Amino acid sequence: MCAAPVARLATIDPDGRPNMVPFCFAFAGDILYTAVDHKPKEGRVLRRTANLVRDARATVLVDHYEDDWDRLWWVRIRGRGRMVEDEAERGRAVAALVEKYAPYREEPPGDVILAIEVDEWRGWTASPVE
Amino acid sequence: MCAAPVARLATIDPDGRPNMVPFCFAFAGDILYTAVDHKPKEGRVLRRTANLVRDARATVLVDHYEDDWDRLWWVRIRGRGRMVEDEAERGRAVAALVEKYAPYREEPPGDVILAIEVDEWRGWTASPVE
Repeated sequence: MCAAPVARLATIDPDGRPNMVPFCFAFAGDILYTAVDHKPKEGRVLRRTANLVRDARATVLVDHYEDDWDRLWWVRIRGRGRMVEDEAERGRAVAALVEKYAPYREEPPGDVILAIEVDEWRGWTASPVE
Repeated sequence: MCAAPVARLATIDPDGRPNMVPFCFAFAGDILYTAVDHKPKEGRVLRRTANLVRDARATVLVDHYEDDWDRLWWVRIRGRGRMVEDEAERGRAVAALVEKYAPYREEPPGDVILAIEVDEWRGWTASPVE
């Protein structure tokens, strides 16, 4: 699950609806980190960040699809998101992201790093795990 | 986007948190349909369905990942979910699902079909669309 290149982050919009975006992530210890990247996003990244500042509750999903439905699986995390302020923590987060993603080695992660503290993991597999 | 084999559905849990699951879908006309499949899910499918019955607001995300981040894209739909009761509509939904997914040709979609009426589409691409 940690090796998956992309996950989806759901946050809560001001009107209570789920917002959802794909995102790149890396773990440093037990905490999941993601960066606001350098590409223009027309406010979408701000939305994601603003949502977490207003209501920290976040849901993260990693899933695996194949045409053979016996091989499907997913992992869902519930946790609390926050902006990373501490410089040492930021260093750990950036190091984990740079190690995992080649594009970050050319262009380091952006100014805003979000942390998601994991409260609950839940996994599902179509076939029993051997 | 319609050809993507898997999307993610976010619904609203009773406590207001986003619930999120990967799911298979097909469009019939302008309406997105998904089926509760035959595999045991320990209440997760019920949760998804129960959430939509209680609060119809649903968010759907389809995203494309590549290691070349200039090729990323996603499409997000906001809409309203409901259980399909009408037999004719159910027939259209099942036909669309069976046409798209080979496994449904061997084992038809389950008893519960969910419809999502699309209120809003939003798309994003890392590179300008040519």
